[in-house]
Amino acid sequence: MLKRVAIIGLGLIGGSVASGLRRQNIEVVAFDQDESNLQQGLELGVIDRAAASIGDAVRDVDLVLIAVPVLAMVPVLTAIKTAQPDAILSDVGSVKQPVLDAFIEVYGNVPVQFVPGHPIAGSEKHGVTAANPDLFRQHRVLLTPLDETDERAVAQVSELWKSLGAEVSQLTVAHHDNILAQTSHLPHLLAYALIDTLSAQGDSLEIFDYAAGGLRDFSRIAASDPTMWRDIFMSNREPLLAILDQYSQELAELRHVIDSGDSAELFERLSRSKTARDHFSKVLEQRQQRVADQLPASIKGDSKPRE
Amino acid sequence: MLKRVAIIGLGLIGGSVASGLRRQNIEVVAFDQDESNLQQGLELGVIDRAAASIGDAVRDVDLVLIAVPVLAMVPVLTAIKTAQPDAILSDVGSVKQPVLDAFIEVYGNVPVQFVPGHPIAGSEKHGVTAANPDLFRQHRVLLTPLDETDERAVAQVSELWKSLGAEVSQLTVAHHDNILAQTSHLPHLLAYALIDTLSAQGDSLEIFDYAAGGLRDFSRIAASDPTMWRDIFMSNREPLLAILDQYSQELAELRHVIDSGDSAELFERLSRSKTARDHFSKVLEQRQQRVADQLPASIKGDSKPRE
Repeated sequence: MLKRVAIIGLGLIGGSVASGLRRQNIEVVAFDQDESNLQQGLELGVIDRAAASIGDAVRDVDLVLIAVPVLAMVPVLTAIKTAQPDAILSDVGSVKQPVLDAFIEVYGNVPVQFVPGHPIAGSEKHGVTAANPDLFRQHRVLLTPLDETDERAVAQVSELWKSLGAEVSQLTVAHHDNILAQTSHLPHLLAYALIDTLSAQGDSLEIFDYAAGGLRDFSRIAASDPTMWRDIFMSNREPLLAILDQYSQELAELRHVIDSGDSAELFERLSRSKTARDHFSKVLEQRQQRVADQLPASIKGDSKPRE
Repeated sequence: MLKRVAIIGLGLIGGSVASGLRRQNIEVVAFDQDESNLQQGLELGVIDRAAASIGDAVRDVDLVLIAVPVLAMVPVLTAIKTAQPDAILSDVGSVKQPVLDAFIEVYGNVPVQFVPGHPIAGSEKHGVTAANPDLFRQHRVLLTPLDETDERAVAQVSELWKSLGAEVSQLTVAHHDNILAQTSHLPHLLAYALIDTLSAQGDSLEIFDYAAGGLRDFSRIAASDPTMWRDIFMSNREPLLAILDQYSQELAELRHVIDSGDSAELFERLSRSKTARDHFSKVLEQRQQRVADQLPASIKGDSKPRE
């Protein structure tokens, strides 16, 4: 059972974990390089204590959750290594290989007490003011432990996420980074590109004013934090470019089909997408039902399922 | 004041207009080539009378609303022309030039009593069973009358849409088709292409099961009716391919920026999109407030604003 947890980086994800743990009477100490974040976290009751440094934060805790951008890991790990806590380490990075690389750079290897993790949850809102203890409810958390990772550490991190209402799965680092390139990173890149293309039109203001549903769904995605997404795109470059190339090929084929007026082939392709999508909807509904059935009694039924 | 309206094509749009008009005690006669649609419409109370033919439907009505797919216009117009109603004619097609072309093919010109229209509203759901009298509430309806179109007809069609809670604007046919290519048709094409690309991956079932928010927003778009979208893509080919080419260029540039590791340029581009998007959000909020303030008293406040 966790008694005290340190959160390094008090943004939306760090803050949401913090408030979810506090609700379970687990003590939360946090550090953030932006002191006003920490003060806000204290004032909002998201954390118990604002630490003066990473070394101060990680002292005498059971678990350290690192919730900083993927490309900001190295200095954080350096400070943690210096403090030498016995605690379990975990993170929330959207790309896993660069996190392992950061550990290897700082520690020389990946410590057995580090459990790489990635909650698939988020919001257009950023920062600790958007912290929400139910953010992970009925969402997936992917853990990517290595063969040598301590099994008790994996179990402990898994329990933490389950206590927040999440469904925890395990997969390999490479598999994780590939799947996320396809289901999250590519869609975000496509959305950013669309908004940028349309903004470059002479009458972009008018375009947005007339915007139909199609554009609205895209633009919601493009509202995400540019720093975070720059880091994600850059650090998951190879899997992302691989699927982007397949996508561009598909788009070029669709262009040709439309340009040549091949209605039958166009219908065939659109129907295929719709079938896949309808299937996906069904899978999603089944998963949500499954997760809802497995929610811990402590949080079951205290708010409606989130999408 | 309208007393009796004919709706040709009783799908989501036709059915929603019908139920909104009936709520105002306007008599609605409908025809659909699928007789079971008509029977469902009658049973659900969406329409007053199911006509046996288009000629039967348009007899003695004040206005005929043609709500069939864009590429199915010619036979419908032929039947209407044969029946020679005095009524105002309007339509709901997502692309306007092909509708004018259909009129020219059947009538030899565009009759002055025809007011081309396009409600920017829809749903993943199809068919008369999804009919909803509030579907157009706080949504835009674009009218694209020609110079010679009868102004009284334009005013009457405009009033019809306003009575359903919509905000009505006028623009030229070419302008309409361009803007829609950018804000609706391109996003739909991109979404279809994404779902098709991901379905082609070996582990597509697993991909969809792990799907994050990014994919979910795209896939909602790709659930739209393949027949309708085939017609839209094909009939708005030139504007669509023009903006698709600009988009592909943007995507190729982003690919190069990521591949070459140019973090600063990537951040610049992502920030630009976010700024445009945030601006768009503001415009949208202002518009919704404006439309809410102008809702007809008859339907003001009887349900929450739709998104």
